[in-house]
Amino acid sequence: MGRTVVTIGREFGSGGREIARRLAELLEVPFYDRQIIALAARDTGFSEEFIQETEQKKTNSFLYNLYYSGQNLPVNDQVFIAQSKVIRQVAEKGGCVIVGRCSDYVLRDRPGCLHVFIHAPLEERIRRAEQEHGGGEESPKTLVARQDKERAAYYAHFTARKWGDLSNYHLTVDSSLGPERVADLLAGLVKSMESAG
Amino acid sequence: MGRTVVTIGREFGSGGREIARRLAELLEVPFYDRQIIALAARDTGFSEEFIQETEQKKTNSFLYNLYYSGQNLPVNDQVFIAQSKVIRQVAEKGGCVIVGRCSDYVLRDRPGCLHVFIHAPLEERIRRAEQEHGGGEESPKTLVARQDKERAAYYAHFTARKWGDLSNYHLTVDSSLGPERVADLLAGLVKSMESAG
Repeated sequence: MGRTVVTIGREFGSGGREIARRLAELLEVPFYDRQIIALAARDTGFSEEFIQETEQKKTNSFLYNLYYSGQNLPVNDQVFIAQSKVIRQVAEKGGCVIVGRCSDYVLRDRPGCLHVFIHAPLEERIRRAEQEHGGGEESPKTLVARQDKERAAYYAHFTARKWGDLSNYHLTVDSSLGPERVADLLAGLVKSMESAG
Repeated sequence: MGRTVVTIGREFGSGGREIARRLAELLEVPFYDRQIIALAARDTGFSEEFIQETEQKKTNSFLYNLYYSGQNLPVNDQVFIAQSKVIRQVAEKGGCVIVGRCSDYVLRDRPGCLHVFIHAPLEERIRRAEQEHGGGEESPKTLVARQDKERAAYYAHFTARKWGDLSNYHLTVDSSLGPERVADLLAGLVKSMESAG
């Protein structure tokens, strides 16, 4: 099992999550996504459902935070801190692939990480959103725009960085090159980095 | 010889040009950089020196353009159009690696291209600038900042796009992963694309 920690940020509908999962399989390392929420939930004492709900709210909703926070920090900050702690813990255990949750930022100073961002042309993302989430009240186009906006706001709130700014990543890649090819490319890069010691 | 046209944009001091040259060697295809200027110069009737000087001027210097332009278009637009024509001509000849000159934009609608951007952390770029261009009047830090600003302005003027915006590229990569590793990565990707037909 490798020792490189790969973090993957992605645009909604880019297929980045599937590429991340495939990469974890190729590297034979654990894959963390919703699992992080579950692990974090235990630490904070909040339920997994509550955390998911909190993440979907606007992160700057003052009244919402005031209402739910019985402690010093707003509740969404408490959740972020708990998740960041879990991200650092799993990274210490060995090689893995972590999707989203500002993991590139949380692990920005940790050596032995590869920070990746997956994007795709808008029309491809809308098509993928229609395949995977079609039939809802929102049009696929609106869904993609809303999700991108939420991810950018979440990232900006907790990191004070711009989401999708290439200087935050070792590699950004357009998944329209082919999801399997991208997973192979990343696996090859990780292996090259590890063989160099 | 491959048939993929690779365009490479790069931050000043990222070592992107050397990576591009190495990539062309690995793929055994022509490498175009200053050669484009020489080819373009013949078309426009301007000397190579004159074109280099024009490119280094602020692209929106009205009086400079007025003074030198004997035709309908400002002289820097004439040079850009001539260079774009040459870029399209060499791309038609077969696989190659083209550095800079907004080549990603010029070939944006051409199938069979791979558009790449190379960057690096600021401190590494300053160190490289010192090694390669040290001893001049400008400090390496000022040189890097000025060159970035000029490239961004040049790109924005001719493309109306933002320089270094990841959505313009199939791949962006941090050269601090290792210049040789990056060249190998790109060569592997091109070969994978070509073997898929």
